Amino acid sequence: MNAPDDVSGLKALICSGTLAPAEIVAVIGKTEGNGGANDFTRALATRALADLIADATDSTRAEILERVLMIWSGGCEGVLSPHATVFTHTPATEAAPGKTLVLGLARTRAILPEEIGTIAQARLTAEAVRKAMANAGLSAAEDVHYVQIKGPLLTPGRIADADARGAPLVSRDGNLSKPLARGILALGVAQGLGEVAEADLVQENVLADMGLFSRVASTSVGGEVDCVEVALMGNAEGGGSRFRIGHGMLASVVDADGIRAAHDDAGGGAIAAIFAKAEPAARVLGLRTTMMSDADVHAERHARAALSAVIAATTGRTAVFISGGTEHQCPEGAAPIAIICEV
Amino acid sequence: MNAPDDVSGLKALICSGTLAPAEIVAVIGKTEGNGGANDFTRALATRALADLIADATDSTRAEILERVLMIWSGGCEGVLSPHATVFTHTPATEAAPGKTLVLGLARTRAILPEEIGTIAQARLTAEAVRKAMANAGLSAAEDVHYVQIKGPLLTPGRIADADARGAPLVSRDGNLSKPLARGILALGVAQGLGEVAEADLVQENVLADMGLFSRVASTSVGGEVDCVEVALMGNAEGGGSRFRIGHGMLASVVDADGIRAAHDDAGGGAIAAIFAKAEPAARVLGLRTTMMSDADVHAERHARAALSAVIAATTGRTAVFISGGTEHQCPEGAAPIAIICEV
Amino acid sequence: MNAPDDVSGLKALICSGTLAPAEIVAVIGKTEGNGGANDFTRALATRALADLIADATDSTRAEILERVLMIWSGGCEGVLSPHATVFTHTPATEAAPGKTLVLGLARTRAILPEEIGTIAQARLTAEAVRKAMANAGLSAAEDVHYVQIKGPLLTPGRIADADARGAPLVSRDGNLSKPLARGILALGVAQGLGEVAEADLVQENVLADMGLFSRVASTSVGGEVDCVEVALMGNAEGGGSRFRIGHGMLASVVDADGIRAAHDDAGGGAIAAIFAKAEPAARVLGLRTTMMSDADVHAERHARAALSAVIAATTGRTAVFISGGTEHQCPEGAAPIAIICEV
Amino acid sequence: MNAPDDVSGLKALICSGTLAPAEIVAVIGKTEGNGGANDFTRALATRALADLIADATDSTRAEILERVLMIWSGGCEGVLSPHATVFTHTPATEAAPGKTLVLGLARTRAILPEEIGTIAQARLTAEAVRKAMANAGLSAAEDVHYVQIKGPLLTPGRIADADARGAPLVSRDGNLSKPLARGILALGVAQGLGEVAEADLVQENVLADMGLFSRVASTSVGGEVDCVEVALMGNAEGGGSRFRIGHGMLASVVDADGIRAAHDDAGGGAIAAIFAKAEPAARVLGLRTTMMSDADVHAERHARAALSAVIAATTGRTAVFISGGTEHQCPEGAAPIAIICEV
Repeated sequence: MNAPDDVSGLKALICSGTLAPAEIVAVIGKTEGNGGANDFTRALATRALADLIADATDSTRAEILERVLMIWSGGCEGVLSPHATVFTHTPATEAAPGKTLVLGLARTRAILPEEIGTIAQARLTAEAVRKAMANAGLSAAEDVHYVQIKGPLLTPGRIADADARGAPLVSRDGNLSKPLARGILALGVAQGLGEVAEADLVQENVLADMGLFSRVASTSVGGEVDCVEVALMGNAEGGGSRFRIGHGMLASVVDADGIRAAHDDAGGGAIAAIFAKAEPAARVLGLRTTMMSDADVHAERHARAALSAVIAATTGRTAVFISGGTEHQCPEGAAPIAIICEV
Repeated sequence: MNAPDDVSGLKALICSGTLAPAEIVAVIGKTEGNGGANDFTRALATRALADLIADATDSTRAEILERVLMIWSGGCEGVLSPHATVFTHTPATEAAPGKTLVLGLARTRAILPEEIGTIAQARLTAEAVRKAMANAGLSAAEDVHYVQIKGPLLTPGRIADADARGAPLVSRDGNLSKPLARGILALGVAQGLGEVAEADLVQENVLADMGLFSRVASTSVGGEVDCVEVALMGNAEGGGSRFRIGHGMLASVVDADGIRAAHDDAGGGAIAAIFAKAEPAARVLGLRTTMMSDADVHAERHARAALSAVIAATTGRTAVFISGGTEHQCPEGAAPIAIICEV
Repeated sequence: MNAPDDVSGLKALICSGTLAPAEIVAVIGKTEGNGGANDFTRALATRALADLIADATDSTRAEILERVLMIWSGGCEGVLSPHATVFTHTPATEAAPGKTLVLGLARTRAILPEEIGTIAQARLTAEAVRKAMANAGLSAAEDVHYVQIKGPLLTPGRIADADARGAPLVSRDGNLSKPLARGILALGVAQGLGEVAEADLVQENVLADMGLFSRVASTSVGGEVDCVEVALMGNAEGGGSRFRIGHGMLASVVDADGIRAAHDDAGGGAIAAIFAKAEPAARVLGLRTTMMSDADVHAERHARAALSAVIAATTGRTAVFISGGTEHQCPEGAAPIAIICEV
Repeated sequence: MNAPDDVSGLKALICSGTLAPAEIVAVIGKTEGNGGANDFTRALATRALADLIADATDSTRAEILERVLMIWSGGCEGVLSPHATVFTHTPATEAAPGKTLVLGLARTRAILPEEIGTIAQARLTAEAVRKAMANAGLSAAEDVHYVQIKGPLLTPGRIADADARGAPLVSRDGNLSKPLARGILALGVAQGLGEVAEADLVQENVLADMGLFSRVASTSVGGEVDCVEVALMGNAEGGGSRFRIGHGMLASVVDADGIRAAHDDAGGGAIAAIFAKAEPAARVLGLRTTMMSDADVHAERHARAALSAVIAATTGRTAVFISGGTEHQCPEGAAPIAIICEV
């Protein structure tokens, strides 16, 4: 994409008949904003893409936003290339043998500003994860390889709204509330998949007991959504697609072996998409980095830049979905990665 | 280094007798500033290190700055770790067989503000490069593998000085003049080593004919120096050290093969130091990046962040000297790299 | 506005009948991006506002963008508040006596990437300015107080387009080409209003002879427009509105007297809108500032932040249109300001 | 100052005999860093100035740092000009009648990393404030107009040190711990001057009960100091100087009247120095600003830029000490200001 509102690539696929717009069910992409609370490139991409699909399917934008799950992460640091991965639900024709990629979608009701970052939000998320599993036709948690979640962020507007109603907030700072909002979503996935016990899902464990985590969650937050949106991917017998998904864990932002292991877990075929998290670290390979103390460039931006380059050097791809913040999405210091390959 | 003025690491080496302070001849390091015209971390590191060596050798700071060449590059993006590589001239004891690492130093007279970025500066640089070759005991240009140069930048103070004298400047913007100042230094190296013809060294070719370049130059500019400083490295029979240097070319900031080739060129031993340039690019591996249009984070910072991570993933090192700007230091779009290994 | 796509304020005015959407002819506003080449908040605001007006007038977005001139400037530094000033053309009812505010609109054909920053673009601009004067019902240049112009910027996409056709560009750097693109637009205004002689309108004078300028131009550039758009304001007998416009000159970003003089020029009534330019300066009130050498925060952002605060302290308003870059829009070092007051 | 290590201005005053270097007791200045945890311009300025005074007084740097209190604030946004205000203790000659400016200095022992941000640090600060009052010859708290305090910040090195000893920290993020570290210092001043009751000085009130504050504190934190340093100013009968100090409160960063009131409180004479705090605000004059949600430019930088311009427009000065963060230094949302005038 040449800009957040450049949808010419998808338009060409639609016009050439390569892709049926009515079959689009989800879009996951990167936009070139700063990735912070004032990154409006996600909203612009959502609007542009929804308008394109609406035009192509004779629908309204509102109908598309209801039907198609769109998850954008802002921040194209290092060698990251702005792009979108478009998921379609196509009637199976000549599906690959064995388990193949399936995708399940779900969303919660609108989250109130005062619920952002709370266990209430985690429970709503867990419920949506279970719905998405059913929607994907998956019954075993071990067949789930990637759960991409997007949830709301505390924006000045939402803070004002809560203030007007006298509702207490977990934070008054949009940027500072991001780790909390992401962590809560991950705990919701973990509960939905049975990775954490019900008893451990209490507010005091949030961002505190980092031994609680999901191995397949990837959570983002942004001002442009007001509910929690879930795109759950796994492999199912008779999945009917020509793709397979695998996942793994990155020990650091320079862990090329972790990237290769995730690729192997997906079967080692030609890569179709990569989804990863980048975790800032005060030390990498034993030496101090300056990510954490840099007041000009946010630590997440340093981390995304680094991981983007290692993934590109390892896989040859720069159109990679890398978002920041791994709270409760892996053991502390690590980061999740999922790769979709051709079977 | 835990800060630009943290010299505790070198102090410990001196105190333990591992390193004789009087034998220090050059220091090349990275500091954690923004790498721009207002990056004063280089000046702070220079001052702190010079004071330490002065104390340890019963000299004044001025004497140390006269005797020891210090080259700092600001900007520790991605996984880069602030550090310094300290070069000493030690009486040979049990030197490795074959050609081994030698280092030659030289500097020009003070460059006037109005000379910065001009052919006059290139000629002075070429002269210093030839002096440094002689100083290193090298006579053949092909034995030269790395010429690190640091030259002055147009600072507000220097612009004011030139204005006061009515002297015309090549630019009035400190940040904008950096590419020009770096390119001129590289052309100086190229002439000094016979890589460009005398006839081609004219002002209109600067930043215009990018086919003119040195294969071993690495140039930086900063407000803290007023002359051009040269640290030239190569391998010489009877060099008397236990290190060997090699060099290579990076096709992009994600060129892991280029890193490995430079390592091989140095003999493939345990790596002691890496010096590389990172070149921003509007496209990497065929897709658009956003480095060039990012108004918040300078393109050089994206590029350094990316290359730092690929070098770390390839070599296991984060204490790497990566600076920005490859003007006339390699074919356009590429970047130079040099590696020092144990023999 | 609570975000670039927050059009709830205008929607409320439309719903309450305060403002007839079909009467909207122009919108000038500030959005909260970084103001650089990768600031997409302008595109988002344009899209959101056009969609609102289209819905309210049963038109398409394309029709609205054809009919309503929208000029956004990115960058809300200091105390600036994101907002839009909406101009309507309303049948006169009980107009104020004397000369009152009139607005004329015009636009050029699409500017080719290779025309950006050239005299050809200036001539097209001058022609559009004369059309806008006629459109406003003004015949004397001295009745023109403010000409807001928006023109295209060199984006990666446009650079690629020109490259594909082998067309030469004035610059290959989107951010660096901004001063040139703004200067050319101002020279176009100056020629259209007879402020510069035809003979002076030559390429070598652009950004060089700063004695050539318009006293009423305010030019912006952005990636989201491809033609030059002109909103020209003045006062005309029988103008039929209850507003009057005046203009002045700011000697620096802290020139409170200049702000007051422009207010007086507009009649001194209750202020309805303020349009100003902020000019970065290496020295303010005789002492050095650090705007020009700051590699983290662009000089224009420092300047807008400063002027926003002085205007707020002087007039009580933070919803002010302040854009950056005064090339050929005033004597060097100064900046233009225009104020609309109630009669 | 043309750079953080440019001490030529002070050197000239010393060389010309205008100022006796041995009489220097304190320096308060602004440097042109980013004002964040990785701003090393303060350390550089301290080192350069201490070296100058040491040379001029035949002392060591360590002796100067022991004897002269140096407080630097990083971040010269807007129109701020890097500078230093140098305080000397000169034998009274022809002092002005009435109460005139006196300065008292004190410092605490080194603060442990685990004490930063705790009540223990506040108590040590209170004690130092009382010592500084005595040192200034002041006995009544109402004669105290300005207490400039500098305390340590949690740096990566200090965090590592505490970790090595297993000592718990109030925060692990250098930038995030700044508000807490500043708030604790202000509560220390408030207790030292009797502005808050002993019973209120408990950890749960820190950054929570914002009704607790000092009216004359101005606190900064930085990585370059390890103890709390106090410079307390007031007016005393027989003070013996030709200056007088006054203070006031700024309702917002655009409160020109507040600036004028502080000037009046100081007697209204020719201004010699201004010390103020800038408080970021989500709303200014009733409308939303974007300071708080800006992920590129820190809110404090927006606020300092704005206030610098209003002070310059009101007083004609750009060499102003404006630092960020008003925690417990005034009623919430306001900011303190102090002005020194000639009598």
